Amino acid sequence: MKAGETPTRELVRDPMAFTDRVTADARDGWPVEAGRYRLVINRACPWAHRVNIVRRLMGLDEAISLAITDPIQEDIDGDAHWVFTEKTGSPGDKDPVLGIHALREAYLARRPDYTGGVSVPGLVDIPTGHLVSNDFAQLTIDFGIEWAALARPGSPVLYPEPLRDEIDALNEVVYRDVNNGVYRSGFAPHQESYDRAVTALFARLDELEERLTGQRYLVGDTITEADIRLFTTLVRFDAVYHGHFKCNIRKLIEYPALWAYARDLFQTPGFGDTTDFDHIRWHYYYVHSAINPTRVVAAGPDPRAWLTPHHRETLGGRPFGDGTPPGPPLEPVPALD
Amino acid sequence: MKAGETPTRELVRDPMAFTDRVTADARDGWPVEAGRYRLVINRACPWAHRVNIVRRLMGLDEAISLAITDPIQEDIDGDAHWVFTEKTGSPGDKDPVLGIHALREAYLARRPDYTGGVSVPGLVDIPTGHLVSNDFAQLTIDFGIEWAALARPGSPVLYPEPLRDEIDALNEVVYRDVNNGVYRSGFAPHQESYDRAVTALFARLDELEERLTGQRYLVGDTITEADIRLFTTLVRFDAVYHGHFKCNIRKLIEYPALWAYARDLFQTPGFGDTTDFDHIRWHYYYVHSAINPTRVVAAGPDPRAWLTPHHRETLGGRPFGDGTPPGPPLEPVPALD
Repeated sequence: MKAGETPTRELVRDPMAFTDRVTADARDGWPVEAGRYRLVINRACPWAHRVNIVRRLMGLDEAISLAITDPIQEDIDGDAHWVFTEKTGSPGDKDPVLGIHALREAYLARRPDYTGGVSVPGLVDIPTGHLVSNDFAQLTIDFGIEWAALARPGSPVLYPEPLRDEIDALNEVVYRDVNNGVYRSGFAPHQESYDRAVTALFARLDELEERLTGQRYLVGDTITEADIRLFTTLVRFDAVYHGHFKCNIRKLIEYPALWAYARDLFQTPGFGDTTDFDHIRWHYYYVHSAINPTRVVAAGPDPRAWLTPHHRETLGGRPFGDGTPPGPPLEPVPALD
Repeated sequence: MKAGETPTRELVRDPMAFTDRVTADARDGWPVEAGRYRLVINRACPWAHRVNIVRRLMGLDEAISLAITDPIQEDIDGDAHWVFTEKTGSPGDKDPVLGIHALREAYLARRPDYTGGVSVPGLVDIPTGHLVSNDFAQLTIDFGIEWAALARPGSPVLYPEPLRDEIDALNEVVYRDVNNGVYRSGFAPHQESYDRAVTALFARLDELEERLTGQRYLVGDTITEADIRLFTTLVRFDAVYHGHFKCNIRKLIEYPALWAYARDLFQTPGFGDTTDFDHIRWHYYYVHSAINPTRVVAAGPDPRAWLTPHHRETLGGRPFGDGTPPGPPLEPVPALD
């Protein structure tokens, strides 16, 4: 995601500019169709990570192909842009399917006069090269529901109808205080805004710690949207948010329940196998030179701790409900080193 | 201490410019004498902290009075200078005993043509206002030995003759890899120099962890110079070095022995009662704007963890050897909040 991320003013995220939905009934003109769309993500970005996790859990790996940008944005016309490079597997510095170097080309293909921000995730229509959506919150919901006809057998119900109100309510506060809270801490332009953000963040983590002490997942007894959205922040917490974003009241590993919960998810197919700590560290430390002028990338902590036993099975819970875990990803699994 | 602390080049400390010694035999012209010298420190600075700890342990509180500068240096003629302010208890922004606003006035009184760096600790001759020494390494040794005639009954032997070689050898590597290593990590101008510094730092901490797993103190079975020098870095580790200086492979609290060892010392009179986490946090985060341009001061972690039980007594050891702990400090003890 790109946002108003400078330490000279408080962080305000750009509203999503492209909110068309790909649906079973094609009501926005975009039908669900295998092989038609390409999901553009960056492995550093938590908002893009969510969508890739849902794609994996639903078994949409083949139906919706994946394009991964370089973790370091490139300066184009004075703005930082997500690009494809040979370094991260795109021959000739272009995505082999879309044939573009910068994601913004898909934005401009769709709307030539567009001058707003360019963010990941982006869902692109392969035949026209048009960006369909950069609406990360809607994309996960739609991958879970609208794409049901193409989902794998045994795919889970990530947004169960009877629990939607509870999931929505939790997602709202988790978004404000945690997902976006770490950014508001890290990019706070002055002490007061930082103090507000970091206080709300840890108050919310304390509350989540209590909630997760007695139950395996956030809502109900299976993995839902709520878990996916919390996970993508937790998995980045000690690697980048704790130090680089000054979220240092506690490390994740100091919360017994949250840390075991995050490891439980990490060790579940779809979560850890889509997490790339190298991309995460390099992106955050290198790109945000306004808060890290030397661009030196911090070394720790050792991500292999994510593989240690979590013992959350003793709490019961059925990760995929009546379903089953997804198989291994089509893309290479990032190394843990 | 002030040093070449900019992230545009590797950190090289200025050589100490004032190395006269106050000794029992007055060989440099400076006799040991109660009430004659004033020790200028800043509570943020680990090099100054060492000297104040030794002053406390030896019971020299009354013989050598203490002047504490503001944690935030003031810009004077384009350089950052240690100054006395009303905010931190100096009426009229001057030290009440020395009558100076900036420590550099004592440097210039001694050597009017001096153009080098100005650092804490500084030992100042009260009658003339001249700086005698800013040689932090020699000051602790001399406070422990040369000042013996004025030391309290029951004061410890911090630099015992039979152990000096071992203490010196340990101090040398601890200085290079730990005391100064955190600065070399934090101010590394490029990735390679950071990687070298942070790797050496944690390799040394790993080794110290092992050493301290089976013994209460670093050398022998009592507190020595070696412990004091390691302590002043450890006590700042999670508060500033871990995040601000990117020493984030592990927190101190992740080292069972080192963390218990550091708490043991913290809870020993002379150590915790001379530690001011507010001054530490404000100084590091606010002053180093080259690595923290927003000057936002990180909130955590909660320093009250320093008061938790350490159970190091079970290892034996005699903190003060045949001596006794010092009484409470003359200066107010900084709050833990």
